[in-house]
Amino acid sequence: MGVVRDVYERYGFEPLETPAFENIETLLGKYGDEGNQLIFKILKRGEHAQTGEADLALRYDLTVPLARVVAQYQNEVPKFFKRYQIQPVWRADRPGKGRFREFYQCDVDAIGSTSPIVEVEILGAVSEVLARLGFDDFVIRLNDRRALAALLECAGVPERLHESALVALDKLDKIGVDGVQKELVARGIDTEATMACVRFFSGLAVADPRRNSPLDRLRDFVAGHHEGPTAVGALDEIVRLSDGTPAHGRIRIDPSLARGLSYYTGAIMEIAVPDLAGSLGGGGRYDRLIGMFLGRDVPACGFSLGLERILVVMGERGMFPASVARGPADVMVTVWNNEARADAIELAAELRLGGLRAEVYPETDRLGKQFKYAASCQVPFVAIVGDDERAARQVAIKDIRSGEQTAVPRSDAAAFIANKLNG
Amino acid sequence: MGVVRDVYERYGFEPLETPAFENIETLLGKYGDEGNQLIFKILKRGEHAQTGEADLALRYDLTVPLARVVAQYQNEVPKFFKRYQIQPVWRADRPGKGRFREFYQCDVDAIGSTSPIVEVEILGAVSEVLARLGFDDFVIRLNDRRALAALLECAGVPERLHESALVALDKLDKIGVDGVQKELVARGIDTEATMACVRFFSGLAVADPRRNSPLDRLRDFVAGHHEGPTAVGALDEIVRLSDGTPAHGRIRIDPSLARGLSYYTGAIMEIAVPDLAGSLGGGGRYDRLIGMFLGRDVPACGFSLGLERILVVMGERGMFPASVARGPADVMVTVWNNEARADAIELAAELRLGGLRAEVYPETDRLGKQFKYAASCQVPFVAIVGDDERAARQVAIKDIRSGEQTAVPRSDAAAFIANKLNG
Repeated sequence: MGVVRDVYERYGFEPLETPAFENIETLLGKYGDEGNQLIFKILKRGEHAQTGEADLALRYDLTVPLARVVAQYQNEVPKFFKRYQIQPVWRADRPGKGRFREFYQCDVDAIGSTSPIVEVEILGAVSEVLARLGFDDFVIRLNDRRALAALLECAGVPERLHESALVALDKLDKIGVDGVQKELVARGIDTEATMACVRFFSGLAVADPRRNSPLDRLRDFVAGHHEGPTAVGALDEIVRLSDGTPAHGRIRIDPSLARGLSYYTGAIMEIAVPDLAGSLGGGGRYDRLIGMFLGRDVPACGFSLGLERILVVMGERGMFPASVARGPADVMVTVWNNEARADAIELAAELRLGGLRAEVYPETDRLGKQFKYAASCQVPFVAIVGDDERAARQVAIKDIRSGEQTAVPRSDAAAFIANKLNG
Repeated sequence: MGVVRDVYERYGFEPLETPAFENIETLLGKYGDEGNQLIFKILKRGEHAQTGEADLALRYDLTVPLARVVAQYQNEVPKFFKRYQIQPVWRADRPGKGRFREFYQCDVDAIGSTSPIVEVEILGAVSEVLARLGFDDFVIRLNDRRALAALLECAGVPERLHESALVALDKLDKIGVDGVQKELVARGIDTEATMACVRFFSGLAVADPRRNSPLDRLRDFVAGHHEGPTAVGALDEIVRLSDGTPAHGRIRIDPSLARGLSYYTGAIMEIAVPDLAGSLGGGGRYDRLIGMFLGRDVPACGFSLGLERILVVMGERGMFPASVARGPADVMVTVWNNEARADAIELAAELRLGGLRAEVYPETDRLGKQFKYAASCQVPFVAIVGDDERAARQVAIKDIRSGEQTAVPRSDAAAFIANKLNG
């Protein structure tokens, strides 16, 4: 979280937090039918509690609450409002690997501009987060909702079936071109349109990327559509402008990427690594969502990283630095007897002043038991002040791993341990 | 939050997070009748949604979820488990100044020991947090639930009326001895017992603290009670052992402190500042709460700081450092025209590498408009790369506050701005 926060702030995003619950009407109807089902609803309080009526609902993502905030405080937010938000969201889903009922999203969003600079800066920021965490093999899949619409229209899929066709196309990675073909037919799309889609996507699968890039093939396919060339141009521009950012070399145009949420209107993107089914995060442009609250549209684009999924992959790959695995304290002060407690507490305070994480063993157990306890908690050092040490203004420092014990002047104790820890 | 986290870790507390909701039975019956009413309840999902039944509830504090976790993972937590937790809690209360429906608690708890070292370390940690935040006038009110019971019994209040009498005593600060007297009578406590309480507390109010400390008066009053001397001794020990900690000189024994929550069994404490009604935080020993989940008692003690209340007081007193009020970026890179966008994005990346928070103005507006926008957002510097600057590998840096503009070699731009920011 520290890395995420630091990188987002370096890109000029400001922190924002919103309440855990929103009015239920704010959330309903924003995430599609499946989303509506997965919203946790909160019972009305007081005299209404018996009716079973729900008036509040837990955050399902961080985008809709942001849109609500921007609409509500339209005169207080800057014209180009860039915020980041790291908070949990809740979905009443069946839990599974990398799927939780409560999970953290790390979002960046930029409100107020249709410029592709927005997409480029956002992709740069999330790429820098992943690079700083140690990921060197992530891929940004990039597409555009308008390009998808143009593609389907040019293939001959009637508009009323677009949403259904997108659900099928989105599975290309998982079920292959044959699977998509079957599913398109099953969804009532006629043979001609289905085969047009299949030809396009199977062509992509075998294309020589040097002469026949996905973007080139898409450009040709949607050339005759009224929005096709605009969408393809926008994709091209995002890729070119990303050259000078940490997203350079990471972006792969993927005309099959659809993204589930219904509020996207332009660029859509998703970040994947080979060893995780599903994505590390996704986002896109949603130029009409704020308008649902405000009555007039405000352009916007955002991206959301899923914290737990990142942690799952980092854990499996052993990417965490050693400092994450350290024990709860650098040194444990032992307690000799009841009379020595005040002195042990004071020594702990001195060690903390010296920059160490120090704790006091709370009981007056045998010293051997106290040493064993420190070892079991991965605390690397214990400090002992017996009668001899007190008389000499010394502290005995025991290295739990080596067993070595050294008497040092009390005023040097913190520096002695800090030195050993860093050495 | 950074300060809180840092201090708590220095005292050997480990971070813990728990889910936002618990099973509803986990929370009900732990906070008294009023607490039960203030719990947000979540509707059952799926086919049961229509019944109005609630099966989950939002966290009401961080203590009960901790007790649940300790009971559930009893074989995995260390014998002396010290954890800190900084998360929001929810109460269906009427919002007011310093009272919110959602607010952050910053808790430290130590599980597994009855030693007063636990209370002393906890009070030391929260005192150090407040001192680091800049508070120099906070007072720790300290009492003991057993001392309260002994006091009421010695005054002649029957045990079945203890809880009711505590509600009245807890208001001593607000309504004075006369008010408490009226309320005790109204709660059905007989004249003799009421007058015994009044004599004790009005004696306190006028006592000469040098000869007649609250602790001494309490000691005398409960001397004949079977638990009285133990409780008074425990209070005395906490004060004495705190001498070598940041809580030194802060603790005031207050025999009228009762604390609302029903689960406390020993020491209870609350931290107050003169300019806030209510407290900045409170806590105490709860040796039987974990037993409600586990079936056998495990001693425990904790303290909870209320983040928003701390922020309210810090805001009113102007205690925030200047860095909190800075704009969202150190420098804004202007965009000359469409062709210059890639270069502007690259310059921003270079400035970030140099340690700055940099953002790119997303549009190609007039430069004057871009300057004005930076000023309105409190961004102190703008960077401009026109054709001349590009040819000379330079950047023009404009100080928004002074209006001064300086051309510097592009490779020195970040250092130049960093220097100005620190100087």
